[in-house]
Amino acid sequence: MRFLERRILKDGRALDGNILLVDSFLNHQVDMPLMREIGVAFAEHFRPFQITRIVTVESSGIAPAGMTALELGVPLVIFKKFASRVASGRFYQVNVQSFTKSTQYELTASKVYLPKGERVLFIDDFLAMGEAAIGVSTIMKEAKCELAGIGIVIEKTFQPGRARLDEMGLYVFSLARIEAMSPESIRFVASDA
Amino acid sequence: MRFLERRILKDGRALDGNILLVDSFLNHQVDMPLMREIGVAFAEHFRPFQITRIVTVESSGIAPAGMTALELGVPLVIFKKFASRVASGRFYQVNVQSFTKSTQYELTASKVYLPKGERVLFIDDFLAMGEAAIGVSTIMKEAKCELAGIGIVIEKTFQPGRARLDEMGLYVFSLARIEAMSPESIRFVASDA
Repeated sequence: MRFLERRILKDGRALDGNILLVDSFLNHQVDMPLMREIGVAFAEHFRPFQITRIVTVESSGIAPAGMTALELGVPLVIFKKFASRVASGRFYQVNVQSFTKSTQYELTASKVYLPKGERVLFIDDFLAMGEAAIGVSTIMKEAKCELAGIGIVIEKTFQPGRARLDEMGLYVFSLARIEAMSPESIRFVASDA
Repeated sequence: MRFLERRILKDGRALDGNILLVDSFLNHQVDMPLMREIGVAFAEHFRPFQITRIVTVESSGIAPAGMTALELGVPLVIFKKFASRVASGRFYQVNVQSFTKSTQYELTASKVYLPKGERVLFIDDFLAMGEAAIGVSTIMKEAKCELAGIGIVIEKTFQPGRARLDEMGLYVFSLARIEAMSPESIRFVASDA
């Protein structure tokens, strides 16, 4: 997806070989026309997958996931990051370690909004270690939903997330795939699409 | 805004006189066509205000604020809820007590995305005590931006938030205004619009 690569080259900033700042258009200040373009691109790609529901994790995934849900005409479910477990059978919860941010949280979703048999598309802003996607996958099994696909805005292919998800047999489609970066340059893998 | 009142009556659930659950269409599962309708309604109302930037607080405000930003053609800035103060001059921060949730957080925004002189519209999902809006107002003064308006999806008029914002001279427009509720019924104030 050249539009996104162009934008990353223009406005993204690699602090080092691992951290890419995109807070001028994706994470903090958000360019909604770009989010719409991202939603259209995910919808085009995933339309044959007969998705019935989109899930994302608060809060940076909400804008791109919401625009994809709007394009595909399906509900969006926002998984919450709770600080601790809740003592209620009304929720699915799984502990997620975020290596990127050195934090952990309880990925939480109400059972009501994950009825059995849904075909789910998980949308997230970044793929690095794959922790969030693996947590979502665990909840999908518990809910007896199918994780039919994972849509990533920016994948860092030099980190282990993609390989871990591939090994689990999960289908991943990324709009931009960075294979190497430094403060001087950002290099992309030839695009999926 | 009758479309929203109808939806609240259909799918909202008042647990008691204070807590309204709207997690089937606004907070947890999100109905994006409804968010678009909300964005259109805010945009129509605030178009004469010459807004240059929309701000919201993560994470329930993102969907309605994003759709409003798309309609008005202005950037969205998502204020973060940090657990503690950061030792950096790059951020505006103000402590916010959330009485509703019995928590507190550091409302945080990068200075880069609040340049002096912007005309800002703050969009949020609920107005109850007004803590978030007052926090945003404090940051706007520090940033030398004008808080030109506050757009609320659901206002609970029987709680003190609206009166506090009125006293501060802030302009508030709410799409649905609840004056009383119970598990049996929800009663709205005659609509602003």
